[in-house]
Amino acid sequence: MDRDSFFMAQALDEAKVSAAMGEVPIGCVIVDEGEIIGRGHNEIESLDSPLAHAEIMALDEAAKKKGRRIGGTLYVTVEPCPMCMGAILNGRIDRLVIGAENPRFGAAGSVVNLAAFRAFNHSVTVRRGVLQGECSELMRTFFKDLRP
Amino acid sequence: MDRDSFFMAQALDEAKVSAAMGEVPIGCVIVDEGEIIGRGHNEIESLDSPLAHAEIMALDEAAKKKGRRIGGTLYVTVEPCPMCMGAILNGRIDRLVIGAENPRFGAAGSVVNLAAFRAFNHSVTVRRGVLQGECSELMRTFFKDLRP
Repeated sequence: MDRDSFFMAQALDEAKVSAAMGEVPIGCVIVDEGEIIGRGHNEIESLDSPLAHAEIMALDEAAKKKGRRIGGTLYVTVEPCPMCMGAILNGRIDRLVIGAENPRFGAAGSVVNLAAFRAFNHSVTVRRGVLQGECSELMRTFFKDLRP
Repeated sequence: MDRDSFFMAQALDEAKVSAAMGEVPIGCVIVDEGEIIGRGHNEIESLDSPLAHAEIMALDEAAKKKGRRIGGTLYVTVEPCPMCMGAILNGRIDRLVIGAENPRFGAAGSVVNLAAFRAFNHSVTVRRGVLQGECSELMRTFFKDLRP
């Protein structure tokens, strides 16, 4: 298993925590120099907050360790929404690794591509499709179970 | 003073709290049925967090009262960045009132227009230029003082 797959598997473990809570299963880890410095899973229903996306939870934890210029690589099981993509840019994440595509809300290319806006002081390198099958399957199963 | 100017003046009071802390002076209030349900000011330096923008602080407070579908009108002294504009959409804010323009990072039309993306399940009505002079002047004074 390559390095990106290894850390995406960690993000998938976070997504499974969301699934077990009845939340849309999306997970995230942030890695700096080989070490996980932030973890998060979607908990918008449990916290009843529009801010509680997996990436925001992970960035919040990582900022407590590294301060506001976090850097490193962010792994997320589903392509980020505009809020999270903006937070990734604000946190000066260097590299973004995505599992499944998000055709409805994706802001790393699917609906809008904020990663490419050089205007935002900072750009982020994007790799897509890491453990895409597992990441997509987890989402598909969740939504299928919602509509029995 | 009209209703929008009244609440923008409240957002300006928040921005002045940031200025007094040596932070870029941006303030925000969220109003629902004539009542302020969230207040925030930029404190990214003090909290050393890329998430601590005025709008995020106000949305976090408002979500604690109203849950994740906040609604209402959000007043902010400077046009939101992509992270905050995405959070405004996620929080189902109905109306956005902006003071000064943000030509470098504005995501309500200046650099990118996320407000107009119907794809994001929800769209937000935007009014610009309320107390624009005061909002711009506060920013100008702050940056001028930084470079004596």
